[in-house]
Amino acid sequence: MKLYTYFRSSAAFRVRIALNLKGVSYEPVSKAFAKKEHRAPDYLAVNPQGLIPALDDDGAVLSQSVAIMEYLDEKYPKPAFLPADPASRARVRSMALAIACDIHPLNNLRVLNYLRKELAQNDDGVNKWYRHWVTEGFRGLEVQAQEFSASKRYCFGDAVSLADICLVPQMYNARRFETDLTAFPTLVAISTHLESIEAFDKAKPEAQPDAA
Amino acid sequence: MKLYTYFRSSAAFRVRIALNLKGVSYEPVSKAFAKKEHRAPDYLAVNPQGLIPALDDDGAVLSQSVAIMEYLDEKYPKPAFLPADPASRARVRSMALAIACDIHPLNNLRVLNYLRKELAQNDDGVNKWYRHWVTEGFRGLEVQAQEFSASKRYCFGDAVSLADICLVPQMYNARRFETDLTAFPTLVAISTHLESIEAFDKAKPEAQPDAA
Repeated sequence: MKLYTYFRSSAAFRVRIALNLKGVSYEPVSKAFAKKEHRAPDYLAVNPQGLIPALDDDGAVLSQSVAIMEYLDEKYPKPAFLPADPASRARVRSMALAIACDIHPLNNLRVLNYLRKELAQNDDGVNKWYRHWVTEGFRGLEVQAQEFSASKRYCFGDAVSLADICLVPQMYNARRFETDLTAFPTLVAISTHLESIEAFDKAKPEAQPDAA
Repeated sequence: MKLYTYFRSSAAFRVRIALNLKGVSYEPVSKAFAKKEHRAPDYLAVNPQGLIPALDDDGAVLSQSVAIMEYLDEKYPKPAFLPADPASRARVRSMALAIACDIHPLNNLRVLNYLRKELAQNDDGVNKWYRHWVTEGFRGLEVQAQEFSASKRYCFGDAVSLADICLVPQMYNARRFETDLTAFPTLVAISTHLESIEAFDKAKPEAQPDAA
């Protein structure tokens, strides 16, 4: 199992957590955004989408972090990333996708670069944009977490899920951009608990071999 | 089954296709973006994320179009939205998520409104942004479709999948924003075929009761 990763990639952070939770060992292959290694021909031949992460499982190359996590969950059922019944599964996926679709892609490095280069935004403009979309997304997620978290330790019920794996990297980035998190006490409590779990802790950016 | 929808919502368009493919009848409840009905307290009580669509299945309210489609696929297995083996499932999900995560959220109405209001962009600036992210996303997807489509009728293999359901609404919007599609002949051929299928055709914006 080979993971194309970058220490700072939030989507790769998710997959690192997922692999750790499943107890699957992997060889990390670093692709540095700053050097545009993820857009070089050799990587585009691996992942035509030109995005990090990608997982090479014995020659089968898979992309998109959420698709990779669903794959890992199908291949290694324990611990399950989704509850058993369809409505609960949908709720967990909805919380995960609120981050993976509606927060993270807006705040990706390539988008922030576009704001700087094409729309002449300075740090203030970029930071305001970043915090705006985190705040927008966390607002709904906080309400859902209040409803669905059993004990403020996990986003849904009382077990780790796809939603938790998406929350921790997003919370990490929200803090990095100094987002005001006062309105999201449930999400902060859940993330703080999750960050104490070894599978999450070992996956954090600064613990990666390619950390600057 | 009640679907909170809006004729112009690309994510609702996906779920309308999915419901039609599964042969599940539903009652549409329109929430007009222009009137901000999707941000009104009564709708936030239904879907705290404040986004369209949401599906109410006998009191279980589910949000996020991809989560809803996975739910429908689990509840109504035929026709399957995903192939049988895990690696193929991951590839289909990756193609679907390339649209649902990395194209569509960047080009959502709320984002275009931010560009206009906060970043003082005019029509030209907004259109350039729109086309940029479609082109970026379609570039990788075209390569994947060339590899995985059996006959240029479906994104993956020779059956309809989650990727097809995401492609058609995205192609619809790409055309609406007059995106140059010359570089994406496979995606255009696939979408043209899919648009001729009744379940897709009936789901298009102008066929909806709330179309302006």
